[in-house]
Amino acid sequence: MLLQNILAGKQLVLASNSPRRQQLLKGLDVDFEVWSTSHTDESFPTDMPIAQIPGYLARHKASFFTSRLSNDVILITCDTIVVCDDRVLGKPSDYADAVTILKQLSGRKHSVITGVCLSTCSKSVCFSATTDVFFRHITDQEIHYYVEQYKPYDKAGAYGIQEWIGYVAIERIEGSYFNVMGLPVQKLHSELVNFLNH
Amino acid sequence: MLLQNILAGKQLVLASNSPRRQQLLKGLDVDFEVWSTSHTDESFPTDMPIAQIPGYLARHKASFFTSRLSNDVILITCDTIVVCDDRVLGKPSDYADAVTILKQLSGRKHSVITGVCLSTCSKSVCFSATTDVFFRHITDQEIHYYVEQYKPYDKAGAYGIQEWIGYVAIERIEGSYFNVMGLPVQKLHSELVNFLNH
Repeated sequence: MLLQNILAGKQLVLASNSPRRQQLLKGLDVDFEVWSTSHTDESFPTDMPIAQIPGYLARHKASFFTSRLSNDVILITCDTIVVCDDRVLGKPSDYADAVTILKQLSGRKHSVITGVCLSTCSKSVCFSATTDVFFRHITDQEIHYYVEQYKPYDKAGAYGIQEWIGYVAIERIEGSYFNVMGLPVQKLHSELVNFLNH
Repeated sequence: MLLQNILAGKQLVLASNSPRRQQLLKGLDVDFEVWSTSHTDESFPTDMPIAQIPGYLARHKASFFTSRLSNDVILITCDTIVVCDDRVLGKPSDYADAVTILKQLSGRKHSVITGVCLSTCSKSVCFSATTDVFFRHITDQEIHYYVEQYKPYDKAGAYGIQEWIGYVAIERIEGSYFNVMGLPVQKLHSELVNFLNH
């Protein structure tokens, strides 16, 4: 059965302020509501293995909505991190920080990990998806052009794969492209089908 | 130097009717003209190795524009094919053909190869890019839903990665996502810089 049919009588909710994630979820041809999120605490235990961080943060985001859940409401919360040389790269704090982050990504591979949590009032499941991204060497002139023109301050890793820098400098990826944009839609689709059928 | 500066005084031209390719080229932040193409002959020598076909067709497309070229006009022509089990899958001829092609892609890997040719009146260079695409098993209901709703008759391999079927059924890719959409923009950018500097 198609996901849109399985969802009949249910209310799918995406708790994310990101217009990119809302657009990605639309691509699954399902109806959903958006709940805005206001908390900005993205801290995690310092001894947590990196691969577990996005799932932890996605589950943490779900905890803010417990009172609004029911058995017919399926809540999606998510978090995306960028990992390079075993270091988590967050959103850049300012122009200089964005330049520093992009210099670090230049000419090497990094990983983008998105954690997703599906929750009703009675159960929840969390999963994550990893995509490896390979940047060619990026010149200083290209980095400054990108940061000035595209102001990637709301993006983990200081870049959007769907923007100019993704067009000119990403040589290849291994994994899901949409995961790099912020939502692993294929895995989400498959996990939603499982979640609703069990 | 940025590509847009290297192109000063030159006229970049994309010879393609595909709105997707025009949108992808725009992502490089360069000005260009679109020349429409009218020939539809996409035949190739039957003994040609598959990997050479897209470059051959891209070069063939350029030959129709010879009289309009000059040293200041850089023409881009391209062709994309889908290869599964050493067979070239073209655009579907009708509904039943689209269903047959998608059943063939279901649950396996295929390759998308785009050949690109850059031409002025005095020189030309051709290159190609390959991306491997991994579909999960797609149900008959999903295939019929997709073909009915999205009518992928203008697409090699009978699907668009940026459409519903790409969202729900493509588990991973290895290579350039934009190449699967029809234009390997990162490689094109790098080849254009080389072409203009030599």
